[in-house]
Amino acid sequence: MPVDPVHLSAELIRCASVTPDEGGALVLLERLLAGAGFTCTRVDRGGVSNLYARWGQRGANKSFGFNGHTDVVPVGDAAAWSRDPFGGEVVDGVLWGRGATDMKTGVAAFAAAAVDFVRSTPPDGAVILAITGDEEGDAVDGTVALLDWMAQNGERMSHCLVGEPTCPNVMGEMMKIGRRGSMTCWFTATGVQGHSAYPHRARNPMSALVNLLARLEEEPLDTGTDHFDASTLAITTIDCGNPATNVIPAKGHATVNIRFNDAHSGASLTAWLQGHAAAVQAETGVQIDLRLQISGESFLTPPGEFSALVARSVAAETGVTPEYSTSGGTSDARFVKDHCPVVEFGLVGKTMHQVDERVEVAQIHQLKAIYSRVLRDYFA
Amino acid sequence: MPVDPVHLSAELIRCASVTPDEGGALVLLERLLAGAGFTCTRVDRGGVSNLYARWGQRGANKSFGFNGHTDVVPVGDAAAWSRDPFGGEVVDGVLWGRGATDMKTGVAAFAAAAVDFVRSTPPDGAVILAITGDEEGDAVDGTVALLDWMAQNGERMSHCLVGEPTCPNVMGEMMKIGRRGSMTCWFTATGVQGHSAYPHRARNPMSALVNLLARLEEEPLDTGTDHFDASTLAITTIDCGNPATNVIPAKGHATVNIRFNDAHSGASLTAWLQGHAAAVQAETGVQIDLRLQISGESFLTPPGEFSALVARSVAAETGVTPEYSTSGGTSDARFVKDHCPVVEFGLVGKTMHQVDERVEVAQIHQLKAIYSRVLRDYFA
Repeated sequence: MPVDPVHLSAELIRCASVTPDEGGALVLLERLLAGAGFTCTRVDRGGVSNLYARWGQRGANKSFGFNGHTDVVPVGDAAAWSRDPFGGEVVDGVLWGRGATDMKTGVAAFAAAAVDFVRSTPPDGAVILAITGDEEGDAVDGTVALLDWMAQNGERMSHCLVGEPTCPNVMGEMMKIGRRGSMTCWFTATGVQGHSAYPHRARNPMSALVNLLARLEEEPLDTGTDHFDASTLAITTIDCGNPATNVIPAKGHATVNIRFNDAHSGASLTAWLQGHAAAVQAETGVQIDLRLQISGESFLTPPGEFSALVARSVAAETGVTPEYSTSGGTSDARFVKDHCPVVEFGLVGKTMHQVDERVEVAQIHQLKAIYSRVLRDYFA
Repeated sequence: MPVDPVHLSAELIRCASVTPDEGGALVLLERLLAGAGFTCTRVDRGGVSNLYARWGQRGANKSFGFNGHTDVVPVGDAAAWSRDPFGGEVVDGVLWGRGATDMKTGVAAFAAAAVDFVRSTPPDGAVILAITGDEEGDAVDGTVALLDWMAQNGERMSHCLVGEPTCPNVMGEMMKIGRRGSMTCWFTATGVQGHSAYPHRARNPMSALVNLLARLEEEPLDTGTDHFDASTLAITTIDCGNPATNVIPAKGHATVNIRFNDAHSGASLTAWLQGHAAAVQAETGVQIDLRLQISGESFLTPPGEFSALVARSVAAETGVTPEYSTSGGTSDARFVKDHCPVVEFGLVGKTMHQVDERVEVAQIHQLKAIYSRVLRDYFA
């Protein structure tokens, strides 16, 4: 009897697995997968639970992997929900609850597809599920821990499909073949305090920051590349906290966040930021210190046979040919891309992270059908 | 017997007249002045005490006025003082205490000069002392109250000398013939919050503020005028308080303080600020609101017979020819200038508002001598 992805989704929603709590979700999946002949290993690290499940031979040439997460973001204002966020209720063809789109449904769809597939058509190769309980948090002990453990144990995926919601509005319209990189720079400007009537006797850190930020925003970083939108820079805050209008302050802070495509790298942008900061420091005498965090480099799985295989499956099941996109925030694909070619396809993500997160059950069935078709075609 | 300005200064210092407390200072002066034939009127308003004293005929053609204040700023860290801030001690030729330069000594010097002058050489005209207890505070019920009362009662000064400390380092080196104006503008930028990965879907108030402030600082307001230093603009703070690096905030704040010379006015600068704000608003779609406070317009008593008379007196007593300056912060001369020509001359102000405020007693004697010479020459 095939696994019902809606029933499995609802069961997973009823596990209150808010990061970093496992909440029973991985235990439930492990029972299902082990029962279908998957070799299951709990790869827990740093207080976070992860599950690695493999059907077939370790290190097989054809080792198709799914990646996803069972942890969810907090419910927010619980009183504002129309349904119990951990109830997993189906009402009028809609499944309600935290994780209904991001992404207990995705995990349920690929787990159901994988179990049915290995039972009905045992493939010549391996089917792998790398499921983490730490995607919505710091993500340092989640998919990264799984990939570390895999490397240490001779486990590999030849290709990987991440089941994150990727469709903005219509089921099937978009898959992801890469993501822009993300970095944050915290500037601290240290000048010399003084009376606002005599700016030439002081060194104004706020003027220096304005000067610097205006330079950074003067020209767009680029206008986009073959597979990427334009890189963007956003000033997210500027702070000083000086209440005295007759005083030029000694210190100020500013933060910028950059989302960058493959025309840049964390290193090239670091040099660019440092160069402008040094120029402003030399010009104004205000010391500019930078603290940098590169959350992820941009990456791309260039369109090819693998992305085409996924796209064909989507089109066959939905009638919609998905766009190859690199838009959106970050996902665990940024870790997987160092291991093997990776693309992402999943549900319509409209209500993710919101109150009343929910999804049409028909789309969960569609998603399982798509993942099933991907498996069949991959091993055909 | 002539009035000893050092003794009188010390007596005034012993009155703890921290704004708005009268502390006995005006009572002491009233007794002295009334005893010398001055008609004294206490012009109290809004919980603040002021003293108007006139010798001679009301509304006389030649009505020479002195203006000053007996209120002082708080002592600050009392434990850090080497001497009792309200002790009025003279040690090794130095008078110590709060108000020793700003400006109980100035008031004592002109009161002593005025009393001696009307006793020894009764002039053909009037000698007026307009002394306030509210200069260091909000100054709304101080010299302004005195001038209001004078206008209502047919009292007038034909010229006025303000006894504020005006010399940066050396006795006699500087007098003030005007002051730059001062205004503050608080900007609030209201945009549309959004994800920092998609700046084009948000409207970033911080970018708009950077854009606006960069425009305001692009060109100097001027390079100075005949009697004034260049106008200055200082960004005193920028604030937002957004801790999330993946969020573009909805609102931000910035404050600028402008010190302006006679090439500008509060109205012209208001229009200039509003013009730039409107341009940035039109360009960015971010709403820019302004709150403006004009603390004082610039003013000038153009160099002429009156300033020359004061300068000659300073040079005769000190051997130093004072520079005509319009530098420095604000003073009550900004109110007097609407009533009659006004200049300022007083002691070396180095220790004003500081711990261990003090002055050489020799300079107090010099100051009385200068004020006495001004009176003699004015009525000669």
